[in-house]
Amino acid sequence: MLVTAGATREPLDPVRYLGNRSSGRMGFALAAAAREAGAEVVLVTGPAALATPRGVERVEVERAEQMHEAVMARIEGADLFIGAAAVADYRPAQEAPEKIKKGSGPLTLTLEPTPDILRAVAARRPRPFVVGFAAETTDLLEHARAKLRDKGLDLVAANRVGPGRGLEVERNSLEVLAAEGEPVSLPEQPKEDLARALIALVAERLEAGGRA
Amino acid sequence: MLVTAGATREPLDPVRYLGNRSSGRMGFALAAAAREAGAEVVLVTGPAALATPRGVERVEVERAEQMHEAVMARIEGADLFIGAAAVADYRPAQEAPEKIKKGSGPLTLTLEPTPDILRAVAARRPRPFVVGFAAETTDLLEHARAKLRDKGLDLVAANRVGPGRGLEVERNSLEVLAAEGEPVSLPEQPKEDLARALIALVAERLEAGGRA
Repeated sequence: MLVTAGATREPLDPVRYLGNRSSGRMGFALAAAAREAGAEVVLVTGPAALATPRGVERVEVERAEQMHEAVMARIEGADLFIGAAAVADYRPAQEAPEKIKKGSGPLTLTLEPTPDILRAVAARRPRPFVVGFAAETTDLLEHARAKLRDKGLDLVAANRVGPGRGLEVERNSLEVLAAEGEPVSLPEQPKEDLARALIALVAERLEAGGRA
Repeated sequence: MLVTAGATREPLDPVRYLGNRSSGRMGFALAAAAREAGAEVVLVTGPAALATPRGVERVEVERAEQMHEAVMARIEGADLFIGAAAVADYRPAQEAPEKIKKGSGPLTLTLEPTPDILRAVAARRPRPFVVGFAAETTDLLEHARAKLRDKGLDLVAANRVGPGRGLEVERNSLEVLAAEGEPVSLPEQPKEDLARALIALVAERLEAGGRA
């Protein structure tokens, strides 16, 4: 199986970047939990100050585009893909080769969309069982359902984020949605426990042949 | 004395931000070296996964504006200010209260300048001895001299940055410039040693009454 974790960084110049708030803790915990459960695990991660879980193969990337390439190069034959990384949706349309000097007035930055990794993995045939994450500040279930349907995912794990919630914290809760049936609530708990609960839930679906 | 360290983060929305590549290591090492040398040290830092040096008062901030406020609130009576933080020069002109949803096309972001902390500290009367850092990808001494003069600093410590150089690494070298005299070269060495050398150099100037 393949898990993505952490945040990507999209450079504006050699020192500045567009980032996302994600410690990588949830993705690393999922890799550890899946390995504990006996899976062969490849963890593709953005910059994260976290130790590699024992027995897990770690692949380090920085940008969304590098994460996309690293995933696509290793997805063949995987039966499960979990996209837990906070991948940048946008990157600067131009990357300055030298540090941009400060001017006196405002500056305009043009951003362009990055490759959509979840959608690309879900579009493969044959394809693995695909689990996405939806970190939302409002209308959690609605946005999560739209993501599931729109990208063709098998499951989506939704969590509310905001100051002190979901990102850069030790604990979290999840609402897990499939195309059919009621959402399953995994209550607030340490991310390690939450990861085990989510892996158990995914394993159930995989054994039941719940692939699209 | 007062030291700033780390990078600031300028939010676009609750999950995305503009960041700078800085681990905070140099600023933390300077705080530790100054404390070792007997100074009372306040360390104002952006998010950094580093332990607070023993005997140092740590103040945590996130944005350039918060760093500016934290410094201004504590600068009264300080005899030395070292600005080692990688402070964002620009912030998004608007911060979205909810997560921006991905659209299909390009996105334009308007950035505005942030408060200039070094300039503000150097403009105070009476003022502390002010040491700035210049991280440059090209024309190192030229840019550093311009910064010294333009902001009215007493010393500027210049280092070349780029992939694998200066930022997010364990070792560094510095060229230290004053308004008069030749630059002093501190050769490549671990940041802890470099910090001690820079603090010794600053102490010499302070004792010699080198204030502007």
